[in-house]
Amino acid sequence: MVTEQEALDRHEKAKGKIETLGKVRIETNEDLATYYTPGVAYVSLAIKGNAENAYKYTSKANTVAIINDGTRVLGLGDIGPEAGLPVMEGKALLYKKFGGVDAVPICIGTKDQEEIIKFAENIAPTFGCIAIEDIKAPKSLEIVDRLSASLDIPVFHDDQYGVAAVVAAGLMNSLKLAGKRMKDAKVVVNGAGSAGIGIAKMLHGLGVKRLYVLDTSGLIYKGRDNDMNKAKERIADISNGERAQGSLEEAVNGADALIGVSVKGAFNPGMISSMGSKPIVFALSNPYPEIEYEAAKEAGAFVAATGRSDTPNSINNLVAFPGIVRGLLDARARRVDYKMLADVAITISRGAGRKLSPEYVVPSMGDRKVSGKLTAAIAATVAESAARSGAARVGIGYEEERKRTLDLIKRYGRIERRAIQGG
Amino acid sequence: MVTEQEALDRHEKAKGKIETLGKVRIETNEDLATYYTPGVAYVSLAIKGNAENAYKYTSKANTVAIINDGTRVLGLGDIGPEAGLPVMEGKALLYKKFGGVDAVPICIGTKDQEEIIKFAENIAPTFGCIAIEDIKAPKSLEIVDRLSASLDIPVFHDDQYGVAAVVAAGLMNSLKLAGKRMKDAKVVVNGAGSAGIGIAKMLHGLGVKRLYVLDTSGLIYKGRDNDMNKAKERIADISNGERAQGSLEEAVNGADALIGVSVKGAFNPGMISSMGSKPIVFALSNPYPEIEYEAAKEAGAFVAATGRSDTPNSINNLVAFPGIVRGLLDARARRVDYKMLADVAITISRGAGRKLSPEYVVPSMGDRKVSGKLTAAIAATVAESAARSGAARVGIGYEEERKRTLDLIKRYGRIERRAIQGG
Repeated sequence: MVTEQEALDRHEKAKGKIETLGKVRIETNEDLATYYTPGVAYVSLAIKGNAENAYKYTSKANTVAIINDGTRVLGLGDIGPEAGLPVMEGKALLYKKFGGVDAVPICIGTKDQEEIIKFAENIAPTFGCIAIEDIKAPKSLEIVDRLSASLDIPVFHDDQYGVAAVVAAGLMNSLKLAGKRMKDAKVVVNGAGSAGIGIAKMLHGLGVKRLYVLDTSGLIYKGRDNDMNKAKERIADISNGERAQGSLEEAVNGADALIGVSVKGAFNPGMISSMGSKPIVFALSNPYPEIEYEAAKEAGAFVAATGRSDTPNSINNLVAFPGIVRGLLDARARRVDYKMLADVAITISRGAGRKLSPEYVVPSMGDRKVSGKLTAAIAATVAESAARSGAARVGIGYEEERKRTLDLIKRYGRIERRAIQGG
Repeated sequence: MVTEQEALDRHEKAKGKIETLGKVRIETNEDLATYYTPGVAYVSLAIKGNAENAYKYTSKANTVAIINDGTRVLGLGDIGPEAGLPVMEGKALLYKKFGGVDAVPICIGTKDQEEIIKFAENIAPTFGCIAIEDIKAPKSLEIVDRLSASLDIPVFHDDQYGVAAVVAAGLMNSLKLAGKRMKDAKVVVNGAGSAGIGIAKMLHGLGVKRLYVLDTSGLIYKGRDNDMNKAKERIADISNGERAQGSLEEAVNGADALIGVSVKGAFNPGMISSMGSKPIVFALSNPYPEIEYEAAKEAGAFVAATGRSDTPNSINNLVAFPGIVRGLLDARARRVDYKMLADVAITISRGAGRKLSPEYVVPSMGDRKVSGKLTAAIAATVAESAARSGAARVGIGYEEERKRTLDLIKRYGRIERRAIQGG
């Protein structure tokens, strides 16, 4: 484990984890006259006549803004925008390393929903994609929905979309191993923040009929009058058809899968014992799961998973987000949709390949050969899905996008080696 | 000269001029656990307790946001935020290359003054400095003044501050060569946009007593009732003591120096002939000067200068901005002030050194040996000035800052060579 002192020391030494790098050299006056005045004026005028040309001539095409307001950073709660910065820089690093995506952390000094929406709308011309990150739910969900409606670039919400794609992939593989089908399975989701809402929508879209979602007030059902919001109302529409009420203990009885996106210690062995045959337990609270991996297995879980990388079945959104955003950018997509994410889930589930077993229901990102190929396949899936749905500004074939992504990851690997070792 | 096709082709090939680069390597799970979860949480908590720690542990300490609304990009007018992007990317490139500063272009989708102010306030936690760039005056001046009052990071306005420092340096050297003194000289500034206002304030601070500023309505004087704004009111307070009225032709009569920050062709040979002995003419409209260099010399100018790099005396803010912002960041300055800029002007004027002549009144940035040393001297001047005035959060000596800047520029030179050649 990394100690506090090590983490602080290594961050202080690095003086920040990302920097800007020129993609062109300015050595001669001719270079300066091409990339700056007067030559750049020709480029500006070409974009003035057609704003879409910004994708052709500027970094917009490859750049995502990571917008955070410091209100729900990791599991640390409302710690303020400056304190969110090291996390967003870390995320930016992963976007670049795993997806070749340039990501700019933007931690903002307002928590007001309307101000955040206005802010994101105003910043949008510069970026090919907006990523809403670690903003507290339900505000985050409302922001994402509103921005998705008003902007013509995709609004990515990793807490909602990325997690949902990986969880769905893991669940598909787990049910397959258990010899069960999505449409018959009883699935209980504990937690109705961004992740819980995303997972529930995703599983509904993938045909899960017996779906139950709980928050701290218990089962969500149509007509419940306390502790509801717009997102939960929608969940009530697509889950819990019989409007059952009750606690997690009651809901989990006879369930085929239990998915936790809630808090440390929310599950106990008794719950797992009360589930159906070959129970599937994803305890994804981070860094401390709802139940430890070993405890879940001991209680009889057929498949157990956490978000940690030190147990089997690490269900981590790092599997999904670099590839999804890579594909969105390359397709110059206008939006993200759940159909696209469902396609991604299938691609991820296939990524487990021959290693598929109760201890390997999602591909591991620890192996760079696996991760590069998987990211490329996800990007290609997104580009293809966007082209089919009409979300794409440019149609790009699966194989072309797959190769392009692999090339980008390799290119960055070379730059990184040279720059950081030499610097 | 660069042709339109060359500029477009080279921009299209580069696919944008800047990218993000990791400053740390993520190879092992230990790296991931240090720079991302769970280790990064320690860093977030260290910043949560003390927001100033963001300077220690994140990229905030070295990063400036370049904010533009597309309303006055180069001389192209209101061309929209996407069309402003290639210019801001070019500027970001120069910030990094000449000052080792990480700059993030942010072209925004609003022209509304209050929305721009709110936007900049909200984005401030992420950055060590805000640069307001190519926003139309007087809105730009109001934005800079308001943000300077509300933010605890410096708000840099190159159009106003950078230009003023270089012009003041050139004027000091020119007057010295002409055997004249600032306090006796009659100086006429044509143009009352961001640059004209900045130059006028600067020259007033440097002791110019016979100062006259004109806009398209003629001489600005206290009590003028048409075409005024807050910035021009202030100029009326510090110039034109006798409240003279009239045109540029009238104002320039007997002047020692004529400085144009206006439009192509605004000056004619007759004006120069009507000036005092050894007339000094800075025609800085870009890319087409108020009068061509050769024409000004033929009309009798003792010193002539333009903003172009293809004539002697290129008065370009590239001389100043990378060093100024470098110094602001290293001192963790809270603000920019005109005293600091006056110190910078003196440093720039000294930078001409033994080459000082009517054809070399400001140092040339064409020579990388000159430019590196000059930028380092400017950064050190700013850091020293900030420490003296109390604007600095950290006191850093002149010599230390000079060396630090030279090291940063060299480091980036190495990274750039490796990354771009290898990429």
